Order: sequence, then structure tokens, then C-alpha cells
Amino acid sequence: MSKNLQVLLASRPTGPVTEAHFRLEERDIPVAESGQVLVRNYWLSLDPYMRGRMSASKSYAASVEIGDVMVGGTVGEVVESKHSRFKVGEFVVGSLGWQLYGVSNGEGLVKVDPDLVPLSAYLGVVGMPGATAWIGLLDHCQPQTGETVVVSAASGAVGGVVGQLAKMQGCRAVGIAGGKAKCEYAVKELGYDACIDYKAGRLYEELKQACPGGIDCYFENVGGPTMDTVFRLLNPFSRVALCGMISDYNLEDPYAVKMMRSLLVNRVKLQGFIVNDRMDLYQRAIRKLGGLVSSGRLKYRESVAEGLQNAPTAFIGLLAGRNFGKQVVKLV
Amino acid sequence: MSKNLQVLLASRPTGPVTEAHFRLEERDIPVAESGQVLVRNYWLSLDPYMRGRMSASKSYAASVEIGDVMVGGTVGEVVESKHSRFKVGEFVVGSLGWQLYGVSNGEGLVKVDPDLVPLSAYLGVVGMPGATAWIGLLDHCQPQTGETVVVSAASGAVGGVVGQLAKMQGCRAVGIAGGKAKCEYAVKELGYDACIDYKAGRLYEELKQACPGGIDCYFENVGGPTMDTVFRLLNPFSRVALCGMISDYNLEDPYAVKMMRSLLVNRVKLQGFIVNDRMDLYQRAIRKLGGLVSSGRLKYRESVAEGLQNAPTAFIGLLAGRNFGKQVVKLV
Repeated sequence: MSKNLQVLLASRPTGPVTEAHFRLEERDIPVAESGQVLVRNYWLSLDPYMRGRMSASKSYAASVEIGDVMVGGTVGEVVESKHSRFKVGEFVVGSLGWQLYGVSNGEGLVKVDPDLVPLSAYLGVVGMPGATAWIGLLDHCQPQTGETVVVSAASGAVGGVVGQLAKMQGCRAVGIAGGKAKCEYAVKELGYDACIDYKAGRLYEELKQACPGGIDCYFENVGGPTMDTVFRLLNPFSRVALCGMISDYNLEDPYAVKMMRSLLVNRVKLQGFIVNDRMDLYQRAIRKLGGLVSSGRLKYRESVAEGLQNAPTAFIGLLAGRNFGKQVVKLV
Repeated sequence: MSKNLQVLLASRPTGPVTEAHFRLEERDIPVAESGQVLVRNYWLSLDPYMRGRMSASKSYAASVEIGDVMVGGTVGEVVESKHSRFKVGEFVVGSLGWQLYGVSNGEGLVKVDPDLVPLSAYLGVVGMPGATAWIGLLDHCQPQTGETVVVSAASGAVGGVVGQLAKMQGCRAVGIAGGKAKCEYAVKELGYDACIDYKAGRLYEELKQACPGGIDCYFENVGGPTMDTVFRLLNPFSRVALCGMISDYNLEDPYAVKMMRSLLVNRVKLQGFIVNDRMDLYQRAIRKLGGLVSSGRLKYRESVAEGLQNAPTAFIGLLAGRNFGKQVVKLV
């Protein structure tokens, strides 16, 4: 490979994302200038937040401009360095976007140890999604031993970590996921006490049965009707960590939530959050998660797309819940 | 008057409350037994939370049973005492319900000074609504100098205090109220920087103009479309104190909120609360509010209904926003 390959934002979706919103382009491999490094990306992370960056509407971060490289977390190897802090051959995690090569001035670039955990794990369980799970559950929900924690998208990159951390906290962990296979995995592999397949159409009844003591903490990744259903079962003084609303991201008209009154009656604390707001906790979370993964106490699963050209299809699948665990793209 | 008069719950409303849901009854004046006091009620408080107690559905407190006296805060005079802590002629605030006389074992009964502020104020600005405003604004929203605080039902028993406390905190206070008269009162008497008449039909545009720096704190008393509109203007890291949703209380189908995503994108903390959960702050709040009222720094206004027999009509009016300031019933 003597060329760089990039996926650009071709146009802004207003409803569902399609392949037509992306454009693959070949460019020259960039050159590291003074104070920069050139990184060969090995893995690209695909995450729901990227849907927000494709829109022009206000979100917590700036939109990607039309014609720009799509934003995204990457892990790769330094292949050229004019930066005092990095050497050729070191591995780094950063946000170099949907491309095979990227240059960086070192800002936001963190060295990682390829021998501690597999490289791709730095994009998931030992990366942004893992830290998101850690911060949302432990800092915002603060679950107490014996409490019931419900997690939507329970087998996903974030949810899978939340459920396992909830168990480590001595909680009852109840997942919500789409399909029998994900639910079985959540219970048998990740250790959830129960997992409800929302696609079976009996979410309220099954969730009520799985949470005989009601719900004390809710880690929300999906929004929509799932959120409304969980709100009906919240206990007094329960906590909701609002991490994502993926079921809404492709809708032009958002789902409207009927059960707001439960937040009042039950004196619920709901906290919207993104992981970047708590960089003070981020590095500590990553260290702890790395230890848990390398010692085998924390499990994870990946959906791997092969090759950058398949990133758009994989991303569209992620928004539709077709991934199983953390969605990554193998670039090398 | 040699008889007691009571308003009982006659039936449960499913939609709007009507007079038919209440029944007026004459009873013998009860007698204080050992450890009890008999109180002649001077004032009855009417508050939105009472609507919840009329329904059978789960709320934060038990429902009133059919045929029971309606619950409600009262202030009155001890006319008979077999309780070591109370003497005849002392004034007490408590929750003796919609009736002229009530007996109490002293639990929840607090002596008040009729010379510090007018007796009825102990049901409003120096009572439960005042403490609610204090706790919701200062403890849950924690507004900082220079921030913008928006208050719905801005001229009401709770909202009127919130707006004035927000000004004392060095904030920009923007009210939302129904009708020109309430808005004028909010600005000219209570000191709000602006107040939007939601009935004029341009809430979003006018609120946006009145909050050029966005909204940092929202004290929510009404819910419904007002909540949705305010959510659109919330700043990153803003706080919502969810105190009431009066616009929903008479609806069989609650209003569905579209703008939940703003809570995520802006990393909002929303806290549902009721004043009774923070009894640790209650007494301190009451003392401070009493001082502010008696020194003239905190203003309030009352809607007075004359006579217990007019309490149902006044309560129905309160739910429809026909009151102006704190709704009380004069019993003597």
C-alpha cells in the first residue's frame, strides 16, 4: 500500500444513513512535519456518536464538514516521527479518523501496550466505550450492593462492560438486547442475571418479572420506547445515566417520551453525559479496565469488518443493531 | 360554629377534577384525648400535589381513600390541649386537612409566630412551597452568579419564591406564566428580568430572546409543551429541578416529551424531587425565608377563597391556573 485511503462525508443524512452519504478516496500518504507523527492505523472504531457528527444540527461536538474525513477512534503504529514524545514502532490510540494513515501533533495520542491486551481492545473495553461504562455506572448511577441495574444495548461495547461492572458491585444486572443470541451471550458469557429480548414484544412484562425489586439504576444507550418502558419500573430515588439514544439517531421525528412523570414521582436523578467531560476519571478507568481484561475478569466481544471500504456498511449495521459487541474495522 | 365541617373525597377523577369529586359534611367537633391537641384551623392551603392524592395510581404518597377528609396543610390555633408540648392559644402549622377542626398527636405540628409574618404565609412563602423553592433551586440547581434561571408558573406559590431567590443569587431570572397580569406582576413586583406569557403562543421565540445566553437552570412546575420548549434552549451542563407537572395532572394521557435528546447532548442533570425528602434543609429554609419576608426582601401574593365550602372550586381553579400567587382558603 503506497497510498492513503480515506472515507469522507459525502452528504448529510436527514433520516437513515446509507452508503451514498460516504465517499471512498485515495490520497497520497501524508508526511510528518516537525512536531508531528505519522501513524499507520491498524483498527478503526465505529461508534453511535458518529451519527451525530454527520448532521449539521447542534450536538456536543462540531459536525464533520462535507468532504472531510469521518471522525473516529483509531489504534495504530507510529511509522514516522518528528515528535519528541513518540518513536517509530510504538503503538498509539487516538482519533485519526476513517483512514489508513493519519498525522498528529501528539494531542490526544496515547501510547498503548500491545502485550497487555489485543490492540483492538483499546478502542472498546479498554478505550472510550469502556471508560463510558465506568463513568456512567460508577460515577453517575453509584449503584449500591443489592440494587438492580438495568442496561439497554446490554451486549454492546458499552453495555457489556456496564453489566459486568454492575455484577462486580454486587448488584442484580438485567440487560435489554435485540435478539435471542445477544441475550444468551449477555447471561451466559457476561454474567447478567437476566436479559430481555425487546424484539420479542413483551418488554414491560418480562422486565417487571426480571426486576422483582424494581429498578434502581438505568444505564440508557438506546432511548425510544425502551426508555419509556424502563421509566415505568423505576424505584424511588433511582438514577438514570443517559449515555445514548441510538434508536432515535436515524429518525427525523424523535420518539416522544410519555413517562416523564415517573421521574418526578420517584424523585429520579437523570444525568446526560459523555465520557470526555470526565477526563479526570478516564485514565483511571482505563487502567482498571486494562487490568480486569488482562486478568480475564472482564469479557468482551467484537464484530470485525474487514477493510476500510467496508466501514460504511458496518456503521449502517451498527445503527440498526446488526453488530454483536464492539464494532471495529480491521485496516491491516 | 358548634360543628366541624369537612371536605371529603367523594370519588376519584380520571380526567379533570370537578365539584362532584368532593362532598361537604358536618360532623361533631372532635375531642382531644390524652397526648392530643384540638386545633381550630384558620387557613387551609391548596396545592397541586393534592391532585395526585385523589388518584389511586402510585405516587410518592398514599392516596386519600374515598370518604376520607382531603389532605392539606393548615395553620390554626390550639383550642384544647392534652399534649405536654402545646398550650391553648398557641398557633401551629400542620397537615390537618380540609376541615375546620382537627386533632393531632403533635407529629408534624410546628408552632409558629403570628407576629413575625401573617399566619397564612406559613402555608406559602414561609411554608412548604417556600421550602420547595429553596431546596429545588439552591440544592438541586445550584445556580451560579451570572447564570440564567428559568421558572415555569413563575408567579405561583413556589415559582414566585424561586424567581426572587434566583435574583438574590445574582442570576438572570426569566419567568413563564399564563397571562399578561401574572407576567407583569412577576417583572414589576417580584423582580424577574423577563416573563413570557405562554398563552400568547410564541413561547419558544420569546424565551429565546429573553435568554440570550441560553438556560442554565430550569425550575419546572408545569411540564407538558412548556417543558419541551425549555429543553430546546438548555445549555451544556444545565440543571433541571423537576418539581411539578401540573399541566399533566388532569390528563388521562400524559403529554409526550420530544426533546429528551437535549438532555443527552447537553449533559443535563434532571432531578425529580419533593420537599419532604430533604427535611434536613426544610427548617433552615423556613427560618431564612421567614427572615426575608419579615424584612420585606421577599414578596408574595395570595389568592384567598372564603370559607371551606369554596375549597373545591378554588382547587379546580388552581389546577387550571386561575389562581394568582399562593392559593389559600380562609376558614375563620
